[in-house]
Amino acid sequence: MTREALVEEIFRKQSYLCVGLDTDPAKIPDHLKTHNDPIFEFNKQIIDSTKDLCVAYKINTAFYEAMGAQGWEIMQRTVQYIPSTHFKIADAKRGDIGNTADQYAKAFFDVMFFDAITLSPYMGEDSIRPFLEHDGKWAIVLGLTSNKGSADFQQLQTGGEMLYETAVKKISKWGDPGNLMFVAGATKASELRNIRSIVPDNFLLVPGVGFQGGSLKEVSEEAFNKECGLLVNASRAIIYAGKKEDFMNEAREIALQYQHEMKGYF
Amino acid sequence: MTREALVEEIFRKQSYLCVGLDTDPAKIPDHLKTHNDPIFEFNKQIIDSTKDLCVAYKINTAFYEAMGAQGWEIMQRTVQYIPSTHFKIADAKRGDIGNTADQYAKAFFDVMFFDAITLSPYMGEDSIRPFLEHDGKWAIVLGLTSNKGSADFQQLQTGGEMLYETAVKKISKWGDPGNLMFVAGATKASELRNIRSIVPDNFLLVPGVGFQGGSLKEVSEEAFNKECGLLVNASRAIIYAGKKEDFMNEAREIALQYQHEMKGYF
Repeated sequence: MTREALVEEIFRKQSYLCVGLDTDPAKIPDHLKTHNDPIFEFNKQIIDSTKDLCVAYKINTAFYEAMGAQGWEIMQRTVQYIPSTHFKIADAKRGDIGNTADQYAKAFFDVMFFDAITLSPYMGEDSIRPFLEHDGKWAIVLGLTSNKGSADFQQLQTGGEMLYETAVKKISKWGDPGNLMFVAGATKASELRNIRSIVPDNFLLVPGVGFQGGSLKEVSEEAFNKECGLLVNASRAIIYAGKKEDFMNEAREIALQYQHEMKGYF
Repeated sequence: MTREALVEEIFRKQSYLCVGLDTDPAKIPDHLKTHNDPIFEFNKQIIDSTKDLCVAYKINTAFYEAMGAQGWEIMQRTVQYIPSTHFKIADAKRGDIGNTADQYAKAFFDVMFFDAITLSPYMGEDSIRPFLEHDGKWAIVLGLTSNKGSADFQQLQTGGEMLYETAVKKISKWGDPGNLMFVAGATKASELRNIRSIVPDNFLLVPGVGFQGGSLKEVSEEAFNKECGLLVNASRAIIYAGKKEDFMNEAREIALQYQHEMKGYF
């Protein structure tokens, strides 16, 4: 998907919501557990009930890999089911040398038909570049993450700035705002402002944002740019909002609350 | 597999060779391309012809993911085919927050039956710890890699030392030599010596070592410890040594040259 198409969809829907399909067999509603295709059925109903409110879906590969080969098959069918109007992210956090990176790009772009893949930058330029050479496909590289462990390395001082700042600066030169986004975990407004100042034009994928705690407001005030430039992800808050047969309605209700608030920031 | 069992196998075979099954459908011998199960057949013949000379097999997940769900199924069967005497490494370079890391641990340890998985440290402690809590299972964390891009971040200065040194020091406290190894790309002897001095007891997984260029000698001289403490990987040099029907014999011949040289370092 091109940047133009993504931006158009965002403005048309007044939404920059990404729904994370971190589907865990242990957490789906009980009535689906006896379905002959429970995980796909769950995903399908979540997609059906949220697709007019979000612009992207993010599939966390770990949850599918934990089901073995069958999980990959469910992931493939889920990606195929997502409408072509939506931006499809493989949250895979891969990162390996050139010839291996080529294989991952093939896996996620050519075989699985994702638009984007999340990548870890530790191995440097030759682990990222192969993902930037596919028309209409995107690399979403970890900048600052929102977990406690981000303090261990990402926030180390490297010559007057933190590692994540060095990383975002350096990586931004390898691609452009048409093929490169960054993961920006937003635990502090100052950090998000900082990342936005380093990459004024790149889209930021922001995980871990609660819709009522003020953080969506903060994220939007700090990082919304003239083409929006944001994809805000919510996974568990949406997909596990309900536990019963009407779980899709509960999920929709939460997605609607996100979208309603987002509309106010355009 | 426990450290004791691995060390015993290494000393019994006088080998610390790991064979990397980076099996690319485009690179297997022509006569196998019409086989009804070409990739598994290739892996099977490589395993059969090298298993007495090596102590570990490393499966690069990217090559299997590039085949979609079917690739995962082939990977599962390949892992099952590797003898239980051998250490089985998923070269997956995963790294994600706690609940996702739990899913990856489940995928690679409980569903796929690997002994170990390679991990990227960028997200910090909570992305590594879940892999250290499984009896007999291992985390192999990227320290210094051998690619050009390792200069981008791994070799940045962070308060008087390089990031990879800080990383290895910090990570070594999260586990112990019975559940934690490091990837140590050996482009310079001084770097390997350095890593060995930081973690005198942990096993190091060393990729990219040619058997005649002197680098196996250098690696062994710098980093062999009293329990060996090394797994030296060769992938393409072994598995693609031959292109014809006797490819398994050619692969064996190269593995034998590695093992023969290794024997001299015990």
